[in-house]
Amino acid sequence: MATSTPSAGKRAGKQLHLFGFVIHSPMNHTVGSWRHPRNNSLGYSFAEPEMWQEVARTLERGKFDGIFFADQLAAYSTYRGSRDAALRHAVQFPIQDPLLLIPMMAASTRHIGLLSTLSVSYYAPYMAVRKLSTLDHLTKGRIGWNIVTSFHQGEALNMGLEKMTPHDERYARADEFLEVCHKLWNSWEKDAVVMDRAGDVFVDPTKVHEIEHRGKYFSCPGFSPVTPSPQGHPVLIQAGASGPGRDFCAKWAEGAFTIQLTGRALASYAEDIRERARRAGRAKVPKVIAGIQIIVGENERAAREKQEELNELVSVEGSLALLSGHTGYDFSKRDLDTLVEDIQDLPGIQGLFEVFTKMHHEKVSLRTAAALYGRSVAQPQIVGDPEQVADQLIRLAEESSVDGFNITPTYTPGSFAEVVDLVVPVLQQRGAFRKEYAGTTLREHFEQTE
Amino acid sequence: MATSTPSAGKRAGKQLHLFGFVIHSPMNHTVGSWRHPRNNSLGYSFAEPEMWQEVARTLERGKFDGIFFADQLAAYSTYRGSRDAALRHAVQFPIQDPLLLIPMMAASTRHIGLLSTLSVSYYAPYMAVRKLSTLDHLTKGRIGWNIVTSFHQGEALNMGLEKMTPHDERYARADEFLEVCHKLWNSWEKDAVVMDRAGDVFVDPTKVHEIEHRGKYFSCPGFSPVTPSPQGHPVLIQAGASGPGRDFCAKWAEGAFTIQLTGRALASYAEDIRERARRAGRAKVPKVIAGIQIIVGENERAAREKQEELNELVSVEGSLALLSGHTGYDFSKRDLDTLVEDIQDLPGIQGLFEVFTKMHHEKVSLRTAAALYGRSVAQPQIVGDPEQVADQLIRLAEESSVDGFNITPTYTPGSFAEVVDLVVPVLQQRGAFRKEYAGTTLREHFEQTE
Repeated sequence: MATSTPSAGKRAGKQLHLFGFVIHSPMNHTVGSWRHPRNNSLGYSFAEPEMWQEVARTLERGKFDGIFFADQLAAYSTYRGSRDAALRHAVQFPIQDPLLLIPMMAASTRHIGLLSTLSVSYYAPYMAVRKLSTLDHLTKGRIGWNIVTSFHQGEALNMGLEKMTPHDERYARADEFLEVCHKLWNSWEKDAVVMDRAGDVFVDPTKVHEIEHRGKYFSCPGFSPVTPSPQGHPVLIQAGASGPGRDFCAKWAEGAFTIQLTGRALASYAEDIRERARRAGRAKVPKVIAGIQIIVGENERAAREKQEELNELVSVEGSLALLSGHTGYDFSKRDLDTLVEDIQDLPGIQGLFEVFTKMHHEKVSLRTAAALYGRSVAQPQIVGDPEQVADQLIRLAEESSVDGFNITPTYTPGSFAEVVDLVVPVLQQRGAFRKEYAGTTLREHFEQTE
Repeated sequence: MATSTPSAGKRAGKQLHLFGFVIHSPMNHTVGSWRHPRNNSLGYSFAEPEMWQEVARTLERGKFDGIFFADQLAAYSTYRGSRDAALRHAVQFPIQDPLLLIPMMAASTRHIGLLSTLSVSYYAPYMAVRKLSTLDHLTKGRIGWNIVTSFHQGEALNMGLEKMTPHDERYARADEFLEVCHKLWNSWEKDAVVMDRAGDVFVDPTKVHEIEHRGKYFSCPGFSPVTPSPQGHPVLIQAGASGPGRDFCAKWAEGAFTIQLTGRALASYAEDIRERARRAGRAKVPKVIAGIQIIVGENERAAREKQEELNELVSVEGSLALLSGHTGYDFSKRDLDTLVEDIQDLPGIQGLFEVFTKMHHEKVSLRTAAALYGRSVAQPQIVGDPEQVADQLIRLAEESSVDGFNITPTYTPGSFAEVVDLVVPVLQQRGAFRKEYAGTTLREHFEQTE
């Protein structure tokens, strides 16, 4: 993460945007983290609201922009063609609906943004708009939507679909989905709700407009069942990685979320998204947010020990279940002692394997590569004392020109409290992070520049 | 409501079950109630959580079994073939998603049950189970599901469906839907989650079972993405009115909800549901819950004045929009001065019109009948001082053999506070309602007998 890029320095004096990156599951992004002695220290199940409400209060105390829920709907079953390893190691499974957890977190906070993944594959646009606009009202404008198209065959089958939409068509379909959503969000004029008690008029019907959408994938004649919400629509986040995915992100998103192991890769991604957004004629380019993991200790040695302790929890089997699930390739077919540099027939994963090899300064076996993947799903681990972590974050943001970080926890909720209590004050002293929220909505936080 | 029935007395000494009957909308079941000077007295919009949290705390203070959300997804547009009247008079519209409000109400209460309508027409069983089981975990077992099949063409069109499933087939489909849900709820053995930290086993994969469902309407190979929730599954409520609807209710429901204007009609409904349940081989027959409205004052005269004040808010146009929406018949085609006894070509609504005529002891015009419908959607208005109201409730329950009431508010949240503060203590003195919750889950409340 040492390489300067053409964008370096652009962020000077600018504020970072920080999010907590979680999953409504016993495990977040570190395989085996549920086993950590300090995980779930409040003694409540991940399935109950208490731990999540504590996470929300903690990150709000730290003035975070928001809490960002990844999501999936079914257990990974690519590895050995079975879901056994995913179940045994709680690999992002069991997994509860984050949309329903968000109101419980909203009820115990006042400022922090709350972002959920919602797949355009499993909701009609009308239903998605109803849910997101309801949430935006209930939270008084704190909702963000991570738009995904879904890649997971097991989800589609359980939802009763015969097969997945092919990848490129998924984005054409998602494009029309977003078009319908925006039509619905704009179907009410801002002053349509008049609430004239004496005149007996709640809504002026002439200010609500049928969208009459009939497209290739969707049909929706009516208007939103929900009045215009505080933010108008949720803050739109997207994490497209492929070419069509990046174009989709550049066209619609306010925030582009990415996972890249190196500063160089981050810089290249950020530059590409901004360029695609400019080509798409966007007035504002999406802010780029990078996934990372922070392991902070009172001194560097303590932090390294924590890192070791954490990484030792990562089982190879759980990691292979995750890696196989994410890539769609069953790694049980390979000898775990194979050096990853000798695996030449999996172009989609080769770049990742090369980075692992470079980072380790030695030849890496498939067994080791899987465990590296299981540590944080290929998100950089930022390790050190509070100053070291803060400086690394600032440097990484400057070098890569990203606008902020989505911070995946180690143990929950304790590791978030450490970031808030130890790292945030240093970032604030360095002038790199807000001391107070300037506004009340997620969009206001996300656009806050000082 | 004076006629004794063969079931009379069966309930002697038994406890009533009480629910608040609401809609996540500016209006509940009384057209124009949003205009009442005491409606929404906290000053928050219906779209925000505060008023609903107050409702939840109030009804919990009153030891109610639960809060029951009706739902629909689109504005009624049968009347004049237009949604103008529904919008103008806020006829159960705009309408927000109750599933997302429930967690906010759960966050501010500890005991009261929370029940939502969820349509089997717009969710896959896998998605419904995920949502309901997530909610049951988050509320520690306080969730109920009002199962509906949906009758509203406008909903189907906005959800992108070309047409509604025909009525009888809807219940065949709903039957299979419930079958899949139960398979998913049973897909985890109770001790599947072992959380063995040392052994690195979160779930014992041999205790989670694929359901391999392939039916006429649904396909779902996998297992629930959510672990067994506190109640196993939500308390199942159903309000089927037709023959197939009643059979469906008798087969699956723990609670049968009905709206009938007279004690005689209630008794006949309750008897029929119990008979159908026995024929279906149910060990426990569903409890029967009747929709009513309570208007209570410090004395009878004050109560009557409140009733007058409330009923005057009911516009004929709003009521016609509701009546036309519910019946699917556009009443703008009729002269409002027609006596309803002369309307002979609408068999579905004729029974209701006859009751209105009998209740008013005089000939009723369509205009008057519509307004009567708009008062409380054909739910009896129980009016009087606290003792009178309590005695009427007890008598109605005894005469009709129903197990409890779903109480629709007039103004919100104030009318709920009046029921809790004025009527509940009398019911408790009469030995007809619990003084304390005996359990913590909705099912425990619903099965509590003293």
